[in-house]
Amino acid sequence: MNQNLPVHLEEYLKLHPADLADHLQRLPQEEAVALLQQLPTTTAATVLAEVEKEKLPEFLPVFPAAQLAEICRRLPADDAVDLLQLLPPARRREVLSGLPPERASEIKSLLRFPEDTAGGIMDNRFITVRDDMTIEQTRDLLRSRAEQERVEDVAYLYVTDAERRLVGIVSLRDLVFRRAERRVGEIMNRDVKFLRATDDQEAVARQFEHYHYLGLPVLDASGRLVGVVKASDALEIARQEATEDMQLMVGLSGEERALTPWRKSVGRRLPWLYVNLLTAFAAATVVGIFESTIAQWTALAVLLPVIAGQGGNAGMQTLTVIIRDMALGELSPGDGRRALIKELILGLVNGLAIGIVVGLAGYWWKGSIALGLVALAAMVLNQLSAALAGVVIPFGLKSLRIDPALASSIFVTTVTDVAGFFFFLGLATLAMPWVVP
Amino acid sequence: MNQNLPVHLEEYLKLHPADLADHLQRLPQEEAVALLQQLPTTTAATVLAEVEKEKLPEFLPVFPAAQLAEICRRLPADDAVDLLQLLPPARRREVLSGLPPERASEIKSLLRFPEDTAGGIMDNRFITVRDDMTIEQTRDLLRSRAEQERVEDVAYLYVTDAERRLVGIVSLRDLVFRRAERRVGEIMNRDVKFLRATDDQEAVARQFEHYHYLGLPVLDASGRLVGVVKASDALEIARQEATEDMQLMVGLSGEERALTPWRKSVGRRLPWLYVNLLTAFAAATVVGIFESTIAQWTALAVLLPVIAGQGGNAGMQTLTVIIRDMALGELSPGDGRRALIKELILGLVNGLAIGIVVGLAGYWWKGSIALGLVALAAMVLNQLSAALAGVVIPFGLKSLRIDPALASSIFVTTVTDVAGFFFFLGLATLAMPWVVP
Repeated sequence: MNQNLPVHLEEYLKLHPADLADHLQRLPQEEAVALLQQLPTTTAATVLAEVEKEKLPEFLPVFPAAQLAEICRRLPADDAVDLLQLLPPARRREVLSGLPPERASEIKSLLRFPEDTAGGIMDNRFITVRDDMTIEQTRDLLRSRAEQERVEDVAYLYVTDAERRLVGIVSLRDLVFRRAERRVGEIMNRDVKFLRATDDQEAVARQFEHYHYLGLPVLDASGRLVGVVKASDALEIARQEATEDMQLMVGLSGEERALTPWRKSVGRRLPWLYVNLLTAFAAATVVGIFESTIAQWTALAVLLPVIAGQGGNAGMQTLTVIIRDMALGELSPGDGRRALIKELILGLVNGLAIGIVVGLAGYWWKGSIALGLVALAAMVLNQLSAALAGVVIPFGLKSLRIDPALASSIFVTTVTDVAGFFFFLGLATLAMPWVVP
Repeated sequence: MNQNLPVHLEEYLKLHPADLADHLQRLPQEEAVALLQQLPTTTAATVLAEVEKEKLPEFLPVFPAAQLAEICRRLPADDAVDLLQLLPPARRREVLSGLPPERASEIKSLLRFPEDTAGGIMDNRFITVRDDMTIEQTRDLLRSRAEQERVEDVAYLYVTDAERRLVGIVSLRDLVFRRAERRVGEIMNRDVKFLRATDDQEAVARQFEHYHYLGLPVLDASGRLVGVVKASDALEIARQEATEDMQLMVGLSGEERALTPWRKSVGRRLPWLYVNLLTAFAAATVVGIFESTIAQWTALAVLLPVIAGQGGNAGMQTLTVIIRDMALGELSPGDGRRALIKELILGLVNGLAIGIVVGLAGYWWKGSIALGLVALAAMVLNQLSAALAGVVIPFGLKSLRIDPALASSIFVTTVTDVAGFFFFLGLATLAMPWVVP
């Protein structure tokens, strides 16, 4: 990040658009908007394409529809689509009607794909050739395309048939050293990996990581080539999904940043704190049932949070491992049972290891063997509950087609609180006759 | 993932190496090792390069040094280095001495760079040209290189001077359509973005995401070109770092997977549960101080976990946002104060919003205004403690050059437990004269 910020417009214009976007997002809203409006339209367009999606709604309203149309005209179609998706429908139509008809229909065809699919993230700029073209003709085509637009970072040309279906790929390297009179069909690679436009973006990111592709072609339902996804797009998705998972787990809806204004953050955090409150009341009810036990044996109130807290911590460990593996696509549904068995063994081992310490501490503190044994047993049972909850809750949410990360830490700690309180106070109540004659 | 696993060796050999590696990692260790030893050396080499680093130590010991040398000879140097880094020094030397001298010195030069730097992840296969070469000569060079080795996915050629310092880049596209007699020096791009070999891998991943590069050259301290990092490598790092952050936060050292054997997992989780136990005892001590208060007013024991738990949850929300922003490089040290102010405001607002509900519930349950007011005040104070801990702990760890994610959730919940118990029971003790006459 730039620590020394520029003061004059000319200095801003020397920045890389991604850096300028970064800077803009750190300014107070009014200053950011004022700066944006001073930028030449082409610069404003490239900067808006780099601004994070969650910040865009702050910046878009200041532009009249005609200027937004101008911005969309200068952006690659996939970036224009990202902007348009954030506009209310009426304003979106207004902007689209301000675009040249060909451009508008190009953008409309991309707007069909949901944002979080391969179709939603792909770039529709790619170069197609026919299999009966010669290498010479292909070179000429590439030369002319390179002159009229920025076809940077092209590594492959896509070979399509008369129905625009993908039949092969040719690398730029082939063009360099194959003889000019050979035909594309003879040298192309027919074994092409591809994505479907409806593929989930998370699955797309995994493919890139697994197979180390630089880019993958995207086909629609009829096998027609409609776009290309690049490795750097997949990188952005992997980051976004990791952030989302971490935040969903602890009850944060929507991607929040450290400097997101507090008024927005309240709306994202408070609802989950209320959900947590409901579950905390459920746990408190369990404690309430045993109020008379506590009244006779107050040492229980002191050890209660230790038993429950250790369960919560162990449950979070299990949960984090499961959720991350699910996100990385490394856990098939059939693995659930194996994971559960492993976690239960771990729960037993860890429960004994911590339970013995807590039990000894309880015995040493109050000289009561009963207190020590109750603490040990409750700890083991609660570690087993933590293991069970840490596996069953994410698998359960997933089978309900809910994001397994969603508020799962709240649910897991509820289980470990309720189970911890119940086992500890319940066992203590059973042991009471030996403790308080 | 493949649900239907192959039964015969020939079927395994038809799989993509990445898929075969996946499969291998899911087999019990003995079966995996047996399968690996049946594979032809070249296949075993490519498969080992795809196996996760944490699994490799299980597979490597079965190979005699001579066979490992054979495997390292067939792998790209950067993959060979990844294998060698996992061997004990004596065995590593043995393997290196089994390699052709040129290959051994190539690998040794890569072993110099720490694993988690640009130098540690870069590929040392790249094509360099001199600026006085003609396009024709460059095409010939590329053709000969393409025949002797797999130079896939090459998008750029790097132009170096007599001292191997990087002076420019030429894209393959330029080779296709520039006239054969022009010189590289005339058409190359001199404004080249690059990485330093010592750059941290996390910073490298951020650069790829920020600027959407396909690949970046890596220079050593004297500006010599020593390697290239690709976008797909950055993707892998971004994933790894996100997983590491999530797991470190909840007290899991080392990257653990759902199906990691439980014996390994115990060693990673139990130490942190013991740390958590120490902090839980600290919190229990606070409760112990107020034991006589609880004995007289057992309703406190019921609400105690509610106050502490809400603090823990809010603290985790704050912590998660801060840690993620730090990892994404979007938080400079100077932003700490702004983030803290935001979180304190949020803590006040959320504390009042939840505190009023808890206070009313306490009043409704026991008919005690004192209980309600004490609960409200303790909740607000604990939400403020959560905000403070959620910001100060990661910034503190970072300023000590410790990973800010390391066990931070344990430290934050300790603060919220201790603060919650102390404020709630302390205020209750002060209010006692009005409650129990």
